[in-house]
Formats: sequence, C-alpha cells, structure tokens
Amino acid sequence: MNKRVVTFGEIMLRLAPNGYYRFFQNDQLQATFGGGEANVAVSLANYGLDSVYVTKLPGHAIGQAAVNALRSFGVDTSHIVRGGDRVGIYFLEKGASQRGSVCIYDRAHSAIQEAQPADFDWDAIFAGADWFHFTGITPALGPNVVEICKDACRAAKARGVKISCDLNYRGKLWTREQARAAMSELCRYVDVCISNEEDAKDVFGIEAAETDITGGKLNKEGYKSVARQLADQFGFERVAITLRSSISASDNDWAGMLYDGEHYCFSKEYHLRIVDRVGGGDSFGGGLIYALLAGKDSQAAIEFAVAASALKHSIEGDFNRITVAEVEKLAGGDGSGRVQR
Amino acid sequence: MNKRVVTFGEIMLRLAPNGYYRFFQNDQLQATFGGGEANVAVSLANYGLDSVYVTKLPGHAIGQAAVNALRSFGVDTSHIVRGGDRVGIYFLEKGASQRGSVCIYDRAHSAIQEAQPADFDWDAIFAGADWFHFTGITPALGPNVVEICKDACRAAKARGVKISCDLNYRGKLWTREQARAAMSELCRYVDVCISNEEDAKDVFGIEAAETDITGGKLNKEGYKSVARQLADQFGFERVAITLRSSISASDNDWAGMLYDGEHYCFSKEYHLRIVDRVGGGDSFGGGLIYALLAGKDSQAAIEFAVAASALKHSIEGDFNRITVAEVEKLAGGDGSGRVQR
Amino acid sequence: MNKRVVTFGEIMLRLAPNGYYRFFQNDQLQATFGGGEANVAVSLANYGLDSVYVTKLPGHAIGQAAVNALRSFGVDTSHIVRGGDRVGIYFLEKGASQRGSVCIYDRAHSAIQEAQPADFDWDAIFAGADWFHFTGITPALGPNVVEICKDACRAAKARGVKISCDLNYRGKLWTREQARAAMSELCRYVDVCISNEEDAKDVFGIEAAETDITGGKLNKEGYKSVARQLADQFGFERVAITLRSSISASDNDWAGMLYDGEHYCFSKEYHLRIVDRVGGGDSFGGGLIYALLAGKDSQAAIEFAVAASALKHSIEGDFNRITVAEVEKLAGGDGSGRVQR
Amino acid sequence: MNKRVVTFGEIMLRLAPNGYYRFFQNDQLQATFGGGEANVAVSLANYGLDSVYVTKLPGHAIGQAAVNALRSFGVDTSHIVRGGDRVGIYFLEKGASQRGSVCIYDRAHSAIQEAQPADFDWDAIFAGADWFHFTGITPALGPNVVEICKDACRAAKARGVKISCDLNYRGKLWTREQARAAMSELCRYVDVCISNEEDAKDVFGIEAAETDITGGKLNKEGYKSVARQLADQFGFERVAITLRSSISASDNDWAGMLYDGEHYCFSKEYHLRIVDRVGGGDSFGGGLIYALLAGKDSQAAIEFAVAASALKHSIEGDFNRITVAEVEKLAGGDGSGRVQR
Amino acid sequence: MNKRVVTFGEIMLRLAPNGYYRFFQNDQLQATFGGGEANVAVSLANYGLDSVYVTKLPGHAIGQAAVNALRSFGVDTSHIVRGGDRVGIYFLEKGASQRGSVCIYDRAHSAIQEAQPADFDWDAIFAGADWFHFTGITPALGPNVVEICKDACRAAKARGVKISCDLNYRGKLWTREQARAAMSELCRYVDVCISNEEDAKDVFGIEAAETDITGGKLNKEGYKSVARQLADQFGFERVAITLRSSISASDNDWAGMLYDGEHYCFSKEYHLRIVDRVGGGDSFGGGLIYALLAGKDSQAAIEFAVAASALKHSIEGDFNRITVAEVEKLAGGDGSGRVQR
Amino acid sequence: MNKRVVTFGEIMLRLAPNGYYRFFQNDQLQATFGGGEANVAVSLANYGLDSVYVTKLPGHAIGQAAVNALRSFGVDTSHIVRGGDRVGIYFLEKGASQRGSVCIYDRAHSAIQEAQPADFDWDAIFAGADWFHFTGITPALGPNVVEICKDACRAAKARGVKISCDLNYRGKLWTREQARAAMSELCRYVDVCISNEEDAKDVFGIEAAETDITGGKLNKEGYKSVARQLADQFGFERVAITLRSSISASDNDWAGMLYDGEHYCFSKEYHLRIVDRVGGGDSFGGGLIYALLAGKDSQAAIEFAVAASALKHSIEGDFNRITVAEVEKLAGGDGSGRVQR
Repeated sequence: MNKRVVTFGEIMLRLAPNGYYRFFQNDQLQATFGGGEANVAVSLANYGLDSVYVTKLPGHAIGQAAVNALRSFGVDTSHIVRGGDRVGIYFLEKGASQRGSVCIYDRAHSAIQEAQPADFDWDAIFAGADWFHFTGITPALGPNVVEICKDACRAAKARGVKISCDLNYRGKLWTREQARAAMSELCRYVDVCISNEEDAKDVFGIEAAETDITGGKLNKEGYKSVARQLADQFGFERVAITLRSSISASDNDWAGMLYDGEHYCFSKEYHLRIVDRVGGGDSFGGGLIYALLAGKDSQAAIEFAVAASALKHSIEGDFNRITVAEVEKLAGGDGSGRVQR
Repeated sequence: MNKRVVTFGEIMLRLAPNGYYRFFQNDQLQATFGGGEANVAVSLANYGLDSVYVTKLPGHAIGQAAVNALRSFGVDTSHIVRGGDRVGIYFLEKGASQRGSVCIYDRAHSAIQEAQPADFDWDAIFAGADWFHFTGITPALGPNVVEICKDACRAAKARGVKISCDLNYRGKLWTREQARAAMSELCRYVDVCISNEEDAKDVFGIEAAETDITGGKLNKEGYKSVARQLADQFGFERVAITLRSSISASDNDWAGMLYDGEHYCFSKEYHLRIVDRVGGGDSFGGGLIYALLAGKDSQAAIEFAVAASALKHSIEGDFNRITVAEVEKLAGGDGSGRVQR
Repeated sequence: MNKRVVTFGEIMLRLAPNGYYRFFQNDQLQATFGGGEANVAVSLANYGLDSVYVTKLPGHAIGQAAVNALRSFGVDTSHIVRGGDRVGIYFLEKGASQRGSVCIYDRAHSAIQEAQPADFDWDAIFAGADWFHFTGITPALGPNVVEICKDACRAAKARGVKISCDLNYRGKLWTREQARAAMSELCRYVDVCISNEEDAKDVFGIEAAETDITGGKLNKEGYKSVARQLADQFGFERVAITLRSSISASDNDWAGMLYDGEHYCFSKEYHLRIVDRVGGGDSFGGGLIYALLAGKDSQAAIEFAVAASALKHSIEGDFNRITVAEVEKLAGGDGSGRVQR
Repeated sequence: MNKRVVTFGEIMLRLAPNGYYRFFQNDQLQATFGGGEANVAVSLANYGLDSVYVTKLPGHAIGQAAVNALRSFGVDTSHIVRGGDRVGIYFLEKGASQRGSVCIYDRAHSAIQEAQPADFDWDAIFAGADWFHFTGITPALGPNVVEICKDACRAAKARGVKISCDLNYRGKLWTREQARAAMSELCRYVDVCISNEEDAKDVFGIEAAETDITGGKLNKEGYKSVARQLADQFGFERVAITLRSSISASDNDWAGMLYDGEHYCFSKEYHLRIVDRVGGGDSFGGGLIYALLAGKDSQAAIEFAVAASALKHSIEGDFNRITVAEVEKLAGGDGSGRVQR
Repeated sequence: MNKRVVTFGEIMLRLAPNGYYRFFQNDQLQATFGGGEANVAVSLANYGLDSVYVTKLPGHAIGQAAVNALRSFGVDTSHIVRGGDRVGIYFLEKGASQRGSVCIYDRAHSAIQEAQPADFDWDAIFAGADWFHFTGITPALGPNVVEICKDACRAAKARGVKISCDLNYRGKLWTREQARAAMSELCRYVDVCISNEEDAKDVFGIEAAETDITGGKLNKEGYKSVARQLADQFGFERVAITLRSSISASDNDWAGMLYDGEHYCFSKEYHLRIVDRVGGGDSFGGGLIYALLAGKDSQAAIEFAVAASALKHSIEGDFNRITVAEVEKLAGGDGSGRVQR
Repeated sequence: MNKRVVTFGEIMLRLAPNGYYRFFQNDQLQATFGGGEANVAVSLANYGLDSVYVTKLPGHAIGQAAVNALRSFGVDTSHIVRGGDRVGIYFLEKGASQRGSVCIYDRAHSAIQEAQPADFDWDAIFAGADWFHFTGITPALGPNVVEICKDACRAAKARGVKISCDLNYRGKLWTREQARAAMSELCRYVDVCISNEEDAKDVFGIEAAETDITGGKLNKEGYKSVARQLADQFGFERVAITLRSSISASDNDWAGMLYDGEHYCFSKEYHLRIVDRVGGGDSFGGGLIYALLAGKDSQAAIEFAVAASALKHSIEGDFNRITVAEVEKLAGGDGSGRVQR
C-alpha cells in the first residue's frame, strides 16, 4: 500500500533476562530495541507501508544498533537525527502466573530527551506523508519534547496529514497535572485517539464509574462512555479503546472497541497465552492505522487491530513481527493455531 | 520385546528458532532431525523393539549426523543407503496462542527423493522382520519413491510382515489426485491404517459430513463413519484415527479411536499444554504399533497410543523420548504431572 | 526485621536441562544450588532477616560455589563447616502437561551425609538466634545426622529458640519405619510443624480417610483432621499444611491451612501456571516463619506463606527470589500479573 | 561518499556450529547470511557508499530474512527479485590449529541459480551507478547465470560503470574448462581484477612456477608475474592479489599487492589470530573498491584493502562489520589492539 | 589473613557481547558488574582478607544485583549507601587480533556520581581498617566525588590506615588539568602509588622521553625514571608500575616494576594469550595490596602482583577469580598451564 | 576395516563451564561423557572398526545417556552391564594462557567402581575380538576392578587377542606403590604399552635422569631410554611415548615416539593451539591401535597416532571426532588449516 506514515518518539535499548529469569538471575540479557512509536513504525513497515521513524540517537555504536534494528524491517531511518550521549534503556523482567512483569526505566538524559526543536525539520519530514502518529510517552520526556511535538503536530496539520495519538500515561515520567496540560493542547490536533480506560482517567480524569480494572471482567458500557467523553471533549474523529482483562501474567483476555462518532464497534475477544506482553498496545495502534489507511470500515478496522495485537502477545520483543496475511487469517476467524505446512 | 520393525521414509534436518522466536529473530537455530517414519522408528527403539530405519542419505557430515541421531536411540541404521547430495530440510517456527506453527519445507532433490528402486534390497531388509511401517509422505516424494514403496510392500507381504500406513497427506508434495492414485494401490497391502479426518478426506475423499475441523469439539459418530468407510474400501484389519481439537497453538485436546472391524474403541481425552506439537501423530503410530505387537486388546492399544502421543506433545523435537513405563503410567490414569523423586 | 534464624540441612548442586528438554537431550545443564533448608534460608534473607545456614561442604571449588550462591543473597555462611569430599547432586528434569518432573538423586556420601556431631558447635551457632528450622530430609541422611539434629534441637530448646520442622518424607533415603522412629523423637522439640497430607501419612501414619491425592480436588475436612492429630500427638503449637491439587505438571491449584490450636485458617487458593515447582514447599516454610516472626495473626500468616509460595512457582530454581513487598501485594489481592512500570 | 555501487550474486544462509564444535556436535547452529558479492555490498554500505545488492530470493520467510539482514546495514535491496523456491545454504564448520574449516554447500536449485535473464532490468539497476562488482562464483552457478552476468556487464559498460571481478574459482560448481570459457569472456568487460594465486591458475592457467601455496612463505616475484600476465591477457587496469600464508587454521599471515599497470604496490603484512576467516577475501574486495572510489593512490588503496580484510578475520560471520575510521586506524599503523575507552 | 581493606569507587553494570561479537551482532549481552576499586575488593576477598567496598547504589533491582555480585565473593557490602537513580553502565566489545576492544561508557548521572559527602560516615567505615584503596577514576566522577575522596583520605590518614591509589586517567571523564589539580591534592595522602607510563604522563606530565607506548618493547630505564619522579614529587613510599606490551588484542607481554625508595624490582615477564583484558590493572593492584599486607619483600610482592594479574587476563569479566595458591604457583615458576587433576 | 576391538573402563559425566569460565561463573555447564577407554572406543568407531565398549552403568537416565552418547558413534554397547547407583562425574574447568585446566573428580562409588568380577562374561565379550585395550585408570578404581582387569587380560590372552595398555597414573585414585603392584602384574599380559615420561616414572620408577618435564623442550634420548627400559622389564612388543611440551594452557608442542624393539621412530612435532586438551592422550592410543591393526609400519603408525591426537586438541569434548581421511591428510603433511570447500 502506497501510504507514508511518520512516527516520532523514543526508541530504547530493552534489556531483559531470558525466559522467566528474574533480573540478573544469570549473566545474560536479551538486548533488543523498542519504544511506543518505534513499535508502530515496525508494524507499519511489516504491513508494507512506507514507514518513517523520527527520533534523535547518539552517533556511537549503540545508537547505530537502534538504527540498524529499524532498518532491518525496512523502516526509513533517514530522518533520524544523530547526536547526544545516551540511548535510553529499559530493563524488563517477564512475569508469569501471579508474578507481574517489571519495568525499570533508565531513560533520563537520552538523546531524544535532550533534543531541541531546532533538531527537526518537520516540513521535510512530512513531505509526501499521509499520517502522523505519536504517543503520550513522547511529550512526557520533557518540556522541550512537548514543544517538538507541537511543532510536529502543527506541521502535520498544515499539510493535511492525519494525526493519531495513543494517550499512554507514564506516571514515572510526569505528573497527571503535567500530562493533562500538555496532552490537552496536543490533542487538539489529533484525529484518532487510542486509549485504555486507565489512561483516559490518568490523563484527563475521564472515567466510567462502575469499572474495576484489577478485578477481571470488563464493562462494555463504561468503555462506550469513556470513548464518547473523549470524542466530545477533543473533537476526535475516532476513539479506539483496548480492553484487557488480566487474569494473570500468563493469561489475558483481549479485545478492543472503536467509536467512529456513530457506532461503537466491539471486536471479538481473544484468550491470550502470553509470550511477551510489552508492545501489545502499540501493535494495536499499528494495526488500527493500517486498517484505517486501507479503507476498512470501523468493524473491520477494530477486528484487524485487535487480531494484530492478539498475535503480538505471542511474539518475543517489542516489535510485532507479523504480516497482513497473518492478521487477516486470525481476524477472519482462524485462531486454532494449527501448523501451517 | 523381541520384535523387529522396519520403517522407511525421509529423515530431514529440522531447523527451528529457539523458544517462541519467529524465523531468524536471532542468529541461532535448533538443529535436530526428524521425519514421519524416523519418528516412529525412534519411538519403537525407545520401547525396546528392534527398530530398523531405511532411507537414503548423503555420505557427507550432514548425512552422517542424521545417522548418528538415530543410532543414539539404538535404531538399526545398517540398512540406510548412503549417496545423493542433500539431506532434506524443514524450517519450523513454533507457534503460541493464536499464532500457529509454520513449516517451510526445503526437501526437494534430497537423496531419498532421488533414490531408485535398485538402491534397496528389501529381501535383505525384511529378514526377520515382524512389521513394516510407512506414511503417505514417502510416496509423495515422487513416482520413483512410489515404486520403491511398492517394492517394499510386496516384499513385506511376501514374507508375512504386517504393514501399517499413516495416510499423512502433504498438499505441498503432490495433488489429491496423485495421492489417491498412489495410495489406493499401496493401501491394498496395508493391514493397519492410521489417519485423521483431514487425511481421509484429502486422500480418499472419505468424510463424515457433520464435522468441522477448525471449529472445536469433534464428532465421534463422524469418526466412526470415516473408519468404517476406510476399512470397507481397503480391507484394513484396523483403522486408527487421531482426534485433535486445536483450541490454540498452546492448548489442544487430544484423543484417538481404534476400529478393529468390530469395536470402535475411543480413548480418554487429554488436555495438552503444548511444548512441541510436531511428531505428535507419529508418536501415536509408534505407540499403536508397539501396543499391537505387545498383544494388547483394542481398548488398551488405543489408550497406549494416545497416552504415548499425549506425552510427545510435552517434549521438544520430533522424537518421542519416552519409555514404556512412562506411557503405561499415564495410560493407567496418572496424569497429575507430580514430581517423581 | 532484626530476627536471627538458623537453618540446617543439605545444599545440593542442582543440574537441570534447560527449558523442557529431557535429560541430556542437548549438551547443556543449568547448574544451580538448592535444598530444603537452604531454600528457606534464602527466603528469609530476602525478607531481610538475619539468616544463618549451617551445613558441611567440601573445601574445593564446588563446595565454595555453594557457599557463594548463598552469600549472594546475604545468607550468613560463617558457620558452614568445610570438609568432606562431595557436594550432593540432584538431577532435575522439568515436566510439562501430563509429563511430571523427574528427580534423580546422587547425594550419597556427601560431606553432610558423612558429617559427625563433633563438627558442629551448636551453642555458638545459636548465639542470638530466634528460630531454628530443619526438614525431615536432614535426619534421613543417616543415623549420624539424626544425632546432629538432636544436638541442634536440644541446644535450641535450651536457649528458648523456636523450632520448626517440615516433615518432608523422602522414600529414597529411608524407610517409613526409620522415619517414624527418628522424627517422633525430633518432633518432641518442634513448635511449628509443616506438612502435606502425604508426609503426615508416610511418616506418622496419620491420615484422613476420604482424600485421594492423585485425584484432583482436596478435602478440607481431611486436612483439619490431619492437623489436629499431628498437634495432639506431638504437642505442636501450630501445624501448617500445604494443599496442592496437581492438575498437570503445568497447572496446579495451591493453597494452605494453618492450625494454631484454636482456628483452622485456610488461605485463598491460587491457580498456578508453573515455571518451576521445586522449592515450592520450602518457600511456604520460609513465608510462614517470616510471617510468624513478624507477629502476623494466623490468617495473615497463612496468606503470606501461601502467596510467597505461589510466587515461587513462577521462578526458576530452588530459591524464592521475592521480596516482602511482592508477597504482600499478592496476599493483598493483586494477582492480576499486570506490568509494573 | 556519494558513490553508488552495484553488486550481483548469491546470498546464502550460512549455518555454522557455535565456537569450535564440529558439525552437529550439539543441537544449535549459528544462522547468518553471506555470499561473495553480498559481503562486498555490506562492506561498502558500512563505508557509507550507496550500496545496491542484486539477486533473486524466494518470497518466503527465509528469503525475507536474507533481505532483512542486508537492510540492517543499509544496503539497498529494492532491486532484489523475489521468486523461486530455495535460499542456497552453506554449512560451515570453523577449524582451529591443524584442523581446517569445512564448507558443505547445499546451494543447488536456489532461486538465483534458476533465475533467467529476463528477471533483471539492468538499465534500471545501473541508473546512477558508479561501479559494478561480481565474482567468479556467480557465473559458476549455471549457464543461465553466465548470461545474466554478460547482460549486466554489457549494461554497465554501456553506461561507463567501472567493473571489478574477483575470480574466486569454486571447483565444486564448475570445471576449470567451464570457468575459463565463461570468465575469459566476462573478463573482457572487467577493469579491476582481484585474484589470489590459486584462482589465477585454476581459472586461466596463469602461474608463477616457484610458489608452493601449502608450504608457507609466499613469493613476491611470483605474484608480480601473475598480476602482469593477468593484466596483459585481459587488459585489466588494475590487478589486486591477496597473499595469504596459512600457518594453521588459527594463525595466518595476510598481505596484498596491487598492480596498476606501472607499480607493484605490496602492503604491510599482518599476523592474524583468526576469529572467522570466511569472507576475508570479500572484505579485501570491498576495501579496494572503496579505496579506489575514494581516489586513494595505489599504495594507499592496497593498504586500506589489506587492513580492512585483516580486521575482517577478527569478526564472526561473512560480513565485515567495520567502519572507515577503524580501517584507517589500522592502515595508519595502530595494530596494537589496545582498549579504546 | 586478618586484615581489613576498604575500597571506594563506582561499580558499573558491564554489558558485553558474547565471544568476539561486535556490539549488537546478536541479541544477547553478557551482563556482569565491575569497576576499578570493586575489582580490587573482589581480589582481596578472594585472597581471604576482610574486604569492605564502599559506593552508592540505587535501591532497585539493578543496584541490588551489584550488591549481590559483590556479596557472592564475601565482600562486605554493609557500608554501601543505597539511593540515587542509576547504576552506571559500560558497554564492552572484546577485540581480537588487530581489532582492539571498545568501551562505551554510559555512566553519567549514576548514584555515586551524584553522591554527596554527607552520604558517607568515614569514621565508621574505617573502624578496624588497615588499608584504603581508590583509583583516579573515582575523583574523575565530579567535584562532589573529589570532596568525598578527600574526606576519605583524611579520615584514613587520621587513623593510620595505609592508602594506595591507582592513577588510572580517564580522558572521557575529565581533562588533564582537572586531573592534575585533584590528584595532586589527593596524592599527598597516598602511600603506595600504582601507575602505568601513560597515566603518569597524562595526570602529572611525568614521562621518560625515550619510550613509545604503541611501538612494542618497553624501556626499563624509562620506567625507573617515572617511578622515581613520582616518588620524589609526592613522597610515595612505593611506586608500582605495570608494563604492558600490546602486540595485538590477542597477545600481550606483561610485567611490572616496584620501586620501594631503594630498589627497582622488575618482575618476570609473561606472554599472555588474552581471554579478557579488562580489570587487568586492577588485579595487579589487588595482588600488590595483598602482598604488601602479607609482608612480602619488594621482589616477592611485585612477582605476586604480576602473576595475579597475568592470571586475570585468562578470566572472563572484570573480577579476578583466583586464589592465593594459584597466584603463588605461577609466581613460583609454574606457568606451563598443565591440567591439574 | 573389519577388526573388533574391546575396551574396558569407566565412562564419566563430564561437567564443564562453557568457554573459559571458571567453575560456576555462570549457571550453565556443558554436559558430555568421556573416559580414557571410552575415548579410545569412540576413536576406533570413527575409524570404521567394530568397537565394543565394556563398563557398568546404572539403569537410570544418566546411565542411559552415557550409553546413548556411545551409540551415536556406532560403538557397540551391548556388553555394558546395567546396575549400580552412580555414573562417575568429573568437573572440568578449561584453562588458558598461564592458567591450567582443573579437574575435580567425583567418581567414588560409581557403578563400575563397585562392580564385581562376576558382572562380566569375558569369553562372550571377546568372541571374535582382535584387540583389547585398557588404561591404568581402570585398575586404580579399586581392588575389585584390578581383579576384573586380570580376568579380562587372561581371557584375552587365552584367545590370542592383542592387549594394549596406557599406563595413565592417577595419583588421586591410588598410591604409587599400589599402582606398581597392580600394573606390574597386568603388564605381563600387555603387548603394546603407551606411556608418557611421568607415568613411567610414577608407576614403575623408570626415568631418564636428564629431562625436566615442566621446563620446555624435551629430551629425545631420555625417551628412548624410558621406552627401552619399559620393553625390557615387561617384554612389551612395542612402547609408544607421547611427548608434550606445555608452553601454556593455550599452546603446546606435541609429538610421539614408537619403539618396536628395533627402531625408535619419532613423529613430526606439531605446534598446537589448544581448543580442548582432555582426551588428547586417549586419541593417541586410538590412533595407534588403528594404525597397527591397519598394518602400518612403525614410522607411519606413530605419524598417524600423533596426527590423530594433534587434531583432537582442536576439538571440544573428550571424544576425537575425526575420520581416517582427516588424520591421513594431516599425517601426510597438510597442516595449513585451509578451508575445505
């Protein structure tokens, strides 16, 4: 599909013990790369789009390795600014059963956190672009990055580029107040908002009273209410909400809902045996952007996004290593996991 | 048990990413060997039979490694013909949850595919033999191999050796029409037929109308009908059918049925947490041959075969690394998986 | 918490194939250390107690590695006697689905098995101690070790140190008669007895008629009866019983009960997806000792012990690598396994 | 450097036991990609050139993995034709001391071997190109590939693109007579010829009587004679010869000579402790092409090429993962291997 | 030996590709811990001293893992201050042959870099201490850490604790001018100075004209001159100088010299096949401190220190995992590397 | 070659850290099998002989794994007696540079150590045999095993089977006096004696005054004298002596000498870069037995044995994974280690 999508954010070095080891239980770490928007960029490249990822990375071998990881999927890295000292790091320990996964962030002072608006030439970046995506993690990196995001949104809007944003609140990066201030302004540019119930509440205080996110079964009416409030408040064309029921670190139920201003389209629900849960939300975003650019209707779009992200939970690493055909097969109803010979 | 069983087919190099990695997600592949009849041969050697495996393999180190893998289990490899250029390869990516396993075959032009009838001295091979087993994959390798299979069947029949065949249709190797033509002729020699519902339909067009193989719960009456049709059409003494309900790539239900011309014996059903599903059907065949040679009655035989293959799904690699005692323990009802200290 | 706990027993080298490989399926073994009381000692060190582990280990590099493993958790190893020839070994093959885990012990002639009472200066060891813990595995090592246990119990009792014992019957080490004789004498010193239904029966012939340990759902009344009989017979202050329903090697239900002479407190039950089941009972013991020393009431204590041991089943190796905060989180009701960012 | 170089050939899946294991000594293989011209393409991308690699690869996941491997270095893969069945494979066992490395090729019937001239649009491929490189391995793949090479050479020549060829005789792919016939015709288009003494003799029968390639120290006069004869016979602008003294599989001496029609420029000689010797010659070619495109004089060019390839021998895999700065440092005289902090 | 040695500095997470892989060549990193003074602390603990390591580390799991690594050797970690955000990181790529090892530091903003003088109670730390050791890397972490070092030196001096310092200039942390200013003041407290020729020149401008450090064979007279100048300028009791000739990243010659104000004692020279060169200098320091505390004369002390550090080069990781007996065996002349059965 | 060779001894589980790690530096051990006579048996099977290995091994999975390891090479394991409790273990840490390899034996109480003469039916074992080989390690296992060795020697002698013995003194298993008593009696049956200078001295007190085994270059006259004394004293037909100069754990010189009663034939000397030194002597024995059975003259036999064992030093594990063709190639003079394509 001949569409060009720009994503902007932070790609980090992800360091994870192998298997179900706790941190430093042995002397090996699995070292890969990932980050909210980078994960979306990889999904889109895998779906055959022209996927452009923008960030700032140091010139040294660690920064280069992040570039190479993206290039291997065919992501266009030519707009990545090189400079700064650090690649942000996150340490990830995979949970199982009642023991949840643990993230320890070591991302302060990374190149992108210390980037300045002048580092990016958004007009050049958006040449020929159809879509721009970012998440709430990126402005959380600092006031300077809020400014860069605003520049990007303004430039995108000026060129008629669609904008999507995954709210993705990170309490370790900023306060709810800081988030609300910055995101309220950025969301004015956004056409498609992606959220889960927690993010809507953490960032904008929007909630549906009767849902309890740690307690199992989700509440469909509550989600409709959250989506409608978000759309009303910011004028989003569409609001997509992911619905995760976390039974344990090993088993989740997973579904999604897309509100297009008219219909509330709920997807099938999948029972997931989890291989790697991190990047699951991003793979939903990637699937949704692809589906909307491909012209799918709302029900088909949410089915594609949820099937794409269901499959992500079976894949190691942040990136969703999956093709359109694989997603369509699952969205079309074949989730039996039989051997494909 | 002092019984001699000959198996004939292709043993391949199996190259699989470790764990749940997708193909080439990192730079390591697990390299083992396997193949329908070789898997049966290993099962039988593990059960203490005199197990003779026949194939053709190149003289180089890759061919030798296949021989060594079989020898480590005590399989008699002295009738393996050495020559040709290639060991067939299959790449296997293990699935999880909704993502099914993927096989990519690279087996064309292997030594056994290019073997000629004159390569094998079946009279010598069957000296002292009690049983001969092959699968539908072997004649699918080419018309030359169909001829070799016929030679083998004729020689076995002439010596009073029992013959079993697992239909095992492989659509990437031949068409349904080719399969039907060849298998119809070969099945005239066969005493014990092993199948699943798909194979019976793909190869012989035999089906029970009301079953839907991707849709969950299986239909017992349908299976009886398939077995009876198979027996009626080819004069099989016994027809064994495996019953797999694929809930996801991680969870299957597994059972079997043995029709002995009189009774339809259904086994217990096991809920399987899958470690490695490939070779599951072969381990059923191995269990069944052992059980019948050991003189078990039909119900005990199907229980043994199904317990053996249930255990296989918990074991990495094509080969069923299990003893008679372990199978008997499960068939006898202890599936609690408690630690054996 | 400023409490000093002494544990005494055998720490072994644990050699396990990686993942779900059967023994020697490839050429690597995971080599760690573990043993009933050592596992408790590590739990207690992780909970911040002053944890002293006593054993005898050879002076060579294998013995030193066992010491180093304990030291890395902050266990006080200064009372470990060095000498003898062997570190005991156990080979562990992890099961899955219907295939149970297998232990092969190679622990005869270890340094601690050949230790003599004169090797240990219990008065020095118990200086400042609040608690002493051992299991039924330790006296099973030989009559000399029964004597050492008696010395330890007498010295502990004389100093007013609380004593706990996990009955832990090992049929490969001694007969039921030997166990009953030795344990009956040792249990006279014990304040807190930990058992499961099998151990109570194997060691003391105490059972509740209607329970079937291989058959699924457990019988609460039966457990109460066992606990009461144990307390009545030996005068234990408290009896704790672990309740495991082994659905398969991959799935267990897990709970516990604590009888304090007055109340029978049953914990919540957890459905466990098992990563590593070995050491699960020991982690219960560690959790119980901590909870009692921390002054928790019986219900809170059993909840802590069961939550601690539920988490252990998600962790590779004998040792429970978990903090008090993590246990409290689960005991407090959050078992959703969500990512902790 | 803003130069565009096109390379054409076969990229194979390279399967190698880890470390110094013999084939199948354990169950893991290191799986990477490589091939004469692909190795050059990666070198050039690493040096910052616009590097375009052309081949034919199947559409499946193995073919895609080869593309991804090249993309990760920034090689332009947009002209790779997709189709065919197989990715060629070579099995590599790394030698040490007196035991030489072993290659087993399994490359017959690969997509590129079965490619046809019509698969490639050389005019489009050479748009904007400055250089074309291929090796003698490529025409050895079959008469159809000879034709493709001729097409490529003609198209390159017509556009004034410089052509380099590494003679690289492979006796397992064709006879000396076949090689001579094809290479004699192709070499008429070549400007820069790369060879070692064996290749010149095997392909063209050109030799210097007094050198003994298995016997240690090399003969400089002999190399001059070979270079002169090659240049005289085919009109090469430049002839580069690699000089390897193989002391053992662990230790080699390594140097090179460049004849520019006027001067015979010998490089420094390096004593190499070998990490991975495969791809050493290709890294020489990559270094030479870069150096000549960068406008270095003959002495500087041969020093760059030899330093680049000396460094390759310290790097695992076919690809030379090295920067211009690292090559210049060594070529400039710093081979002390001190830590760069 | 009943001596107490305090070391102070930064312990970092060391992330290194396995074997000779370049950075991120595959997806695994070897994750261990190390740092100048921590390496000395581990050496001393291995030699049986009471070794106290002081630093500041975050409270999270990464910080705890650093503590655990030290504890496993028996290092006393009770004076480590917990707090701050980061554990410093260094990425290490092991070189071979002409390719040198590469360090990329990511240590800015670590807990110890942001520590304050009030974090450390030196009087408590030095209670019972016999020796204090630090390196020039520690004050290079920032002016606040210079102040902490001064506090430590003053407290040590006041208690009659011997002080040793390894000059260890790190150009990426501070300028020569900053180093000279800080180190000149700190060296007034130092009794035993450890240096190599480069450090003496970089920090204090002290050099012996005729030596060329990248050019191979070292100049003994030059080293005497450097030692004498250092001793004269700062009043050191002893100056020890390490003598490394770096033939390549795989082969070094290694020796040392100790000047005690009277004699210049040169050690034997060892030809090293390098397994891991990082920590080599620190292991020399550890050996020297042990030897001097053990009362060895100058010649025996330098032989011990050089033998200890020669052995370090054969050991993976920063830490010197070696016993006194092993060092004495080599220092005593047995460097044949025969198997010890 | 149609010759049958019987070997008898102990096969152990070999547990070694990977690469150059010290014991338990990480949590993985390489687990393989080996032992003096088993190593010879594997060599001979690899050379195409009918190789029968005799020992006693437990019935459990560890014992079975040892059998399987031998079977994979085609060694005839049908005479292995099953019973007893333990497989002997040795822990091996590979040395490098000045750090020698370390063996820690944990073999006491193994099945073969506790075997009785009645376990073995030597007449059946030697049916059709041409050669019997054992080493001095086997009688060192205990007086019962000395008796078994005597039984074997007597039975072999009675059938005209040639007997070879490698003296192989192990000071940890018995005293020099015990060794001399037992070996003097056993050597009366031996036709071909294999030794190194140390063994001749340790076992029989035979030495050549002027040689210093830790000091480098070996003394040819001394070796002649030792061989002659051995032959004179015991009436050996042939005495073979291995000549190792241990420069370091990484570099050895290696040669051999064969005395046939008439000539002293010295082999070429090889400079070895060592991958794995253990089993080097056994591979010499295997090469020598093959060469003598193949009818080679003394010079050719010693060249074959030394080339075979030179190659072994480049191979991981106890077993010499090498073919006759590979040995002949090296013995024929090609030790350049060039890639075999």
